[in-house]
Amino acid sequence: MTRHIAIIGAGLIGASWAALFLSKGLRVTVSDPTQAALAALPGFITTAWADLAQLDDIAAAPPFDALSTTQDIASACAQADMVQECGPDRIAIKRQIVAEIETTLPADAIIASSTSSLMASDIQDGAHHPGRILVAHPMNPPHLVPLVELVAGRATEPDCMARARAFYDGIGRVTVVVQKERVGHLANRLTSALYREAVSLVAEGVATVADVDRAIAHGPGLRWAFMGPHLTYHLGGGAGGYRHYLEHLGPTQVARWADQTTPAMTPDLIETLVAGIADATAGESPADLARRRDTALVALAKLKRDLGA
Amino acid sequence: MTRHIAIIGAGLIGASWAALFLSKGLRVTVSDPTQAALAALPGFITTAWADLAQLDDIAAAPPFDALSTTQDIASACAQADMVQECGPDRIAIKRQIVAEIETTLPADAIIASSTSSLMASDIQDGAHHPGRILVAHPMNPPHLVPLVELVAGRATEPDCMARARAFYDGIGRVTVVVQKERVGHLANRLTSALYREAVSLVAEGVATVADVDRAIAHGPGLRWAFMGPHLTYHLGGGAGGYRHYLEHLGPTQVARWADQTTPAMTPDLIETLVAGIADATAGESPADLARRRDTALVALAKLKRDLGA
Repeated sequence: MTRHIAIIGAGLIGASWAALFLSKGLRVTVSDPTQAALAALPGFITTAWADLAQLDDIAAAPPFDALSTTQDIASACAQADMVQECGPDRIAIKRQIVAEIETTLPADAIIASSTSSLMASDIQDGAHHPGRILVAHPMNPPHLVPLVELVAGRATEPDCMARARAFYDGIGRVTVVVQKERVGHLANRLTSALYREAVSLVAEGVATVADVDRAIAHGPGLRWAFMGPHLTYHLGGGAGGYRHYLEHLGPTQVARWADQTTPAMTPDLIETLVAGIADATAGESPADLARRRDTALVALAKLKRDLGA
Repeated sequence: MTRHIAIIGAGLIGASWAALFLSKGLRVTVSDPTQAALAALPGFITTAWADLAQLDDIAAAPPFDALSTTQDIASACAQADMVQECGPDRIAIKRQIVAEIETTLPADAIIASSTSSLMASDIQDGAHHPGRILVAHPMNPPHLVPLVELVAGRATEPDCMARARAFYDGIGRVTVVVQKERVGHLANRLTSALYREAVSLVAEGVATVADVDRAIAHGPGLRWAFMGPHLTYHLGGGAGGYRHYLEHLGPTQVARWADQTTPAMTPDLIETLVAGIADATAGESPADLARRRDTALVALAKLKRDLGA
């Protein structure tokens, strides 16, 4: 059972994991080469704690006595019985991090990488104990978005996958097991697909950045907070369900797919997108927008819990 | 000002519009060639009314004295000062409906089509007053999803677009103006793009139907209830915003786009999808699932109103 987790990397993802793990009663050691990143950790955790306190029956203040920090990966892992790796997404750096982790981490402890773009098979390549290395990819911010995508590499032991799944399920995450290694796992492949068309519509002058975003957030995005695209179209089939939908309206999807193209991400298009988001956000800072996003995610999490959704 | 609206077609979309318009104090006349569809209308409206009453300060029971029904399009339009057309999405039928509408509808009254797949330019072709014909496309169910996509055809008069926008805005809808006629307008192009990858992931054995849907509803779908893809990636750029994101992480999107393909909707794939949704829904009927969806949409609408989101 996991009681003490080492987090490698104190960026946004690592810091958010730290707040979540502390809220679940775990001891947490965070390593980062940058002292400034470690120094910013308590402030981040305090802010995240206020959100977590609305979702969970936790102490009024974060248990900072259960948190330690270090600039050294090996010493962070010496007492840990699991590692959540959140370093930069470059394969050479990942392998170096794994090598340092393995100098002290007990041989049966799992190394879960938060990588969004690399493969577990590549990360575990050359490791002393490749079988315990897997991907456990969250969405940002991990303490508020429950999805964790688990992906095994070629060498990952099934028992390690099962233990990882039990761990994340046990702390209230929603796990999915990705059955083949693909760029972007599941969720980021899906977001990329939506984004391709969101960019195309602007590139082709069909709509402004603001209107594309409004169309999602006041249209299909409302349903997606509760159900994915398959279930959505199952209901689109009425009493006949998904089979009726696919047999009668499937061809309209195929026709739309044929009409969609990949935009060229030119400097001009980048300027159009940047100007569009400036117009849509009317000067509100990314930090303020992120705060509003997190407030909304907390409220939505409470709502979904109440509905059992 | 619109006081009396004729709805052509008493299917799911027409019935939902009827409930919404009644809740906003309009007189409503619904025409449908099928007596059974008209007979089902009061039951549908009563159910929808319970949802609408949670969002709006309305009477306890639907004002059925403000609702009339008829099997005849021309007589439905004789007293109307606007038409919401919800007939079958086939161009020959649409043109026939428009011809019948124009036998009685006052010349300055707008004809707004709910069509999801046709173009306003094609619908207005051959009409007596093509300038007043436009697309006002809702998402299902229109009384709970606020988005209305407005699309002008070649002949649509700007004044009619402006009046239509003022009308839908005035009854609490969120309008977007689609600047070019394209198959699927905005929202259904975006949902189709997401769906293409959702189907591909199942077709290629990367994940089950249930896991694809879980990934959305417990992952990126949560954010999409409040913000579209452009704003999401603007926040993904941190303090540097969208420009930083596009310049540094834009290439990862381009790489994912290059890795995505269009699935072939074969009979085998349809069987896989149908079996997958049966597994994911565990025997719950489409009607019960739709009821749960509507309950969730009402709760989310209240939440968004409270947050000003």
